[in-house]
Amino acid sequence: MDNTTLIGMIAAVCTTAAFVPQVLQILKSGNVDGISVAMYSILTFGVAMWLVYGIILQDLPMFLANLVTFLLSSSVLALTLRKRFQNRRNLGGAVPHI
Amino acid sequence: MDNTTLIGMIAAVCTTAAFVPQVLQILKSGNVDGISVAMYSILTFGVAMWLVYGIILQDLPMFLANLVTFLLSSSVLALTLRKRFQNRRNLGGAVPHI
Repeated sequence: MDNTTLIGMIAAVCTTAAFVPQVLQILKSGNVDGISVAMYSILTFGVAMWLVYGIILQDLPMFLANLVTFLLSSSVLALTLRKRFQNRRNLGGAVPHI
Repeated sequence: MDNTTLIGMIAAVCTTAAFVPQVLQILKSGNVDGISVAMYSILTFGVAMWLVYGIILQDLPMFLANLVTFLLSSSVLALTLRKRFQNRRNLGGAVPHI
């Protein structure tokens, strides 16, 4: 494997696996205060577009990497929204900052 | 421009611009509680690798998109670390959860 391919694989693994610690931190601490729902909504949509792009180009590595990223970023989004609405119920219906 | 190129551009713009709302939310609220430093450290390193990859391949769009993402993700990382160490000083030296 030449250096360029190696660098590309390291980049792909890092930018895919990076979201794992964020998911684990939310599951462990339950704290989603500083997390931007807008960011994860746009990011999840963008990664879904990369999935479609990978399917059209029949590029399996691109598809698989973005599938993992899609699952992770949508998990962060879902966990954050769920926690915000739990907080809302606890606040007796006051509208939370999303 | 054909549909495939359009989908690729939408994907690139979204996965690059997605970090802007997170940076703005931190600047506005100062709240970094739920943000994972591990995630942004790995992500920033991974995006830096994509930058190197783009330079080697002399792929300008890949370089420019990842340069923007690198600046945004490293901003989130720097703002989060700065806030955590400010909190540490306010707590009189107790070790904050990073």
